Amino acid sequence: MRAAETAGADALLLTHGADVRYLSGFTGSSGAIALLGGRATLFTDGRYANQAKAEAKGLRVVIDKRPPEIQAVEWLASSGATQCAFDAGITSVASLERMKKALPQPLRRGFFLPTEGLVARLRQIKDDDEVARLRRAAAIGCGLFAMVLEYVTSSATELQVAAQLEFMARLAGAEAMSFETIVAGGERSALPHGRATSARLPAQGFVTLDFGVLLDGYCSDMTRTVHLGRATEQEWEVYHSVLEAQQAAIAAVAAGVRCADVDEAARSVLRRAGLEKEFAHSTGHGVGLEIHEGPRIAAAQEQILEAGMIITIEPGAYLSGSPGGSALKPDAMAAGRSRVASSRSRRVHPVEKGFGVRIEDMLLVTRSGCEVLTAASSRDWMEL
Amino acid sequence: MRAAETAGADALLLTHGADVRYLSGFTGSSGAIALLGGRATLFTDGRYANQAKAEAKGLRVVIDKRPPEIQAVEWLASSGATQCAFDAGITSVASLERMKKALPQPLRRGFFLPTEGLVARLRQIKDDDEVARLRRAAAIGCGLFAMVLEYVTSSATELQVAAQLEFMARLAGAEAMSFETIVAGGERSALPHGRATSARLPAQGFVTLDFGVLLDGYCSDMTRTVHLGRATEQEWEVYHSVLEAQQAAIAAVAAGVRCADVDEAARSVLRRAGLEKEFAHSTGHGVGLEIHEGPRIAAAQEQILEAGMIITIEPGAYLSGSPGGSALKPDAMAAGRSRVASSRSRRVHPVEKGFGVRIEDMLLVTRSGCEVLTAASSRDWMEL
Repeated sequence: MRAAETAGADALLLTHGADVRYLSGFTGSSGAIALLGGRATLFTDGRYANQAKAEAKGLRVVIDKRPPEIQAVEWLASSGATQCAFDAGITSVASLERMKKALPQPLRRGFFLPTEGLVARLRQIKDDDEVARLRRAAAIGCGLFAMVLEYVTSSATELQVAAQLEFMARLAGAEAMSFETIVAGGERSALPHGRATSARLPAQGFVTLDFGVLLDGYCSDMTRTVHLGRATEQEWEVYHSVLEAQQAAIAAVAAGVRCADVDEAARSVLRRAGLEKEFAHSTGHGVGLEIHEGPRIAAAQEQILEAGMIITIEPGAYLSGSPGGSALKPDAMAAGRSRVASSRSRRVHPVEKGFGVRIEDMLLVTRSGCEVLTAASSRDWMEL
Repeated sequence: MRAAETAGADALLLTHGADVRYLSGFTGSSGAIALLGGRATLFTDGRYANQAKAEAKGLRVVIDKRPPEIQAVEWLASSGATQCAFDAGITSVASLERMKKALPQPLRRGFFLPTEGLVARLRQIKDDDEVARLRRAAAIGCGLFAMVLEYVTSSATELQVAAQLEFMARLAGAEAMSFETIVAGGERSALPHGRATSARLPAQGFVTLDFGVLLDGYCSDMTRTVHLGRATEQEWEVYHSVLEAQQAAIAAVAAGVRCADVDEAARSVLRRAGLEKEFAHSTGHGVGLEIHEGPRIAAAQEQILEAGMIITIEPGAYLSGSPGGSALKPDAMAAGRSRVASSRSRRVHPVEKGFGVRIEDMLLVTRSGCEVLTAASSRDWMEL
């Protein structure tokens, strides 16, 4: 409510599922919270009558057939609200029109005050209970990775590995996966979002696994890249450049640090290794009730990290193949690591087949640094 | 485009993922299609450069860093569009503001014309290719139900059954489940949306399984209710009332029939059985790229069924428990089936523990009636 008052309104309407759950505990798919004069009321429909009362303790609960946001608006109007902040990033144009029509004519003009992310900003800082849930979700992620490794063989398809991983996740109590499982083998590891397909894993090549569970409403997110068969020197180089970038970013994380500086910590390592263009996405994101929340760990992000934020750090490098050629520029390679034997040659490490590497951990920002919630799962080079 | 012209605009902007996929084949998570003068252009970002060109054949593809809808609006403005229809049910208030700001000042007033569901209405009628995909998805659903039955025992938890079902779905090639799997045992079968929990299945009682797969972008959806252990007469009665209602609704389906009349065909059977109040949801819905599409098969829905629509028919009855009491009114029971022994008594069938039954099939509306796509899975009474 303080957030709404800051915006100048005396009332606040929330309709986004994650916001409603965050403030009330209510997990139904259809609900709206109206706040006025320090009192919060949850509106939902008959399907959720018992559930709303059980979950949204301390809130007044109103059940009605009409859409919850219409109920909420009518109640606010009849309770003397004069201006109501709503989330313009969530509310559709059509929904706002319907809400306006639910108001008495004299109130319509200027009643609704568009804001964005009022609750999403609060949700960035996790309380102890949320940290505990995210810690459990992250721990399950680590366990799943350890268990699924025995299925990561060249006789398996990406889909079979994903199926095993998801099966074990469900048996471990996950409500669902927190996003589409990525199992990307061989050349498909060069796709940043290579969701599992019926493609067979390679006899020789990387396999990237990026996955998370939804546990008690909260998301986990982690990525590991392993190698099947014997790797080339370049594969080894790129892996360790990404790992170095990831560790540099993790080392940069602490309350008070700008998100852009954490991103740059990872990006500068990959730049020195000649892999800047091969790292085309941001370094990380907040995670909680939703898989992608604030803050964004990306270039030009001025936001300051705060203790209690839970974020991912996930740099990667993706090299597309070009028959007979090298994806790395020779000059860039010259700036690379010592295992590069003859960095002046144009074809020291030809990348006939593309490949990619990403390493991702989930971590809790603390005053002095951070705690890696997925630390139980090793990031060491793994040749299976 | 004809749809937009009917609305009075010379341009059309589409941003909803299912609409974009429907019209272009593009499956990326971020894309916008602009239509002007019979030409369609797909806008997306660098992550999807190769994918967009491969998937969206016949469309011009533009790749840029900015949000696709902003790219689209700028292109429309510079190409001479004077008014652009957009989907007000999809577009957020904040997104519309940003799109307005992307326009040259003189164009801003009146450029955007709110419409709702222009493409969603087209999507209701499936073409042959879509029917083939939905048929395959439905067939996989039937196979999964047959295979999962061996896990439906009183020693299993709901979650274990769901995990097995989802595991087999993935191995069969499903991209994902089309919604959260419902496995609701015993008293939990009285919840219309009882998603699988760690609760153990009952030694005696109903188990409702409601699930679907996402296959090649298209959703399946089916529900079966089976009984563990020996059923009471009332359980048998309610099951057969729901089955009779479902078959009556299926028999009512044909091109040219009002949706409300199909709903009434199911509802009247349950009304005669004294179960009208226990059937609190609608009878069905369209299904396709999204799990819930038009038409709605519900009371007061004037929409007329058309050949090529694919819909669900899924009546149910949910009896909440009341210690020592009956959920059915004695008068209502009197109108029930012949197996009711002494329908005048207040306690012929006490429902101490609540239970529920739902039976759902997916069907293709044809000129003369319908074809049940989930016919391979029996609806017969099943006591396991």
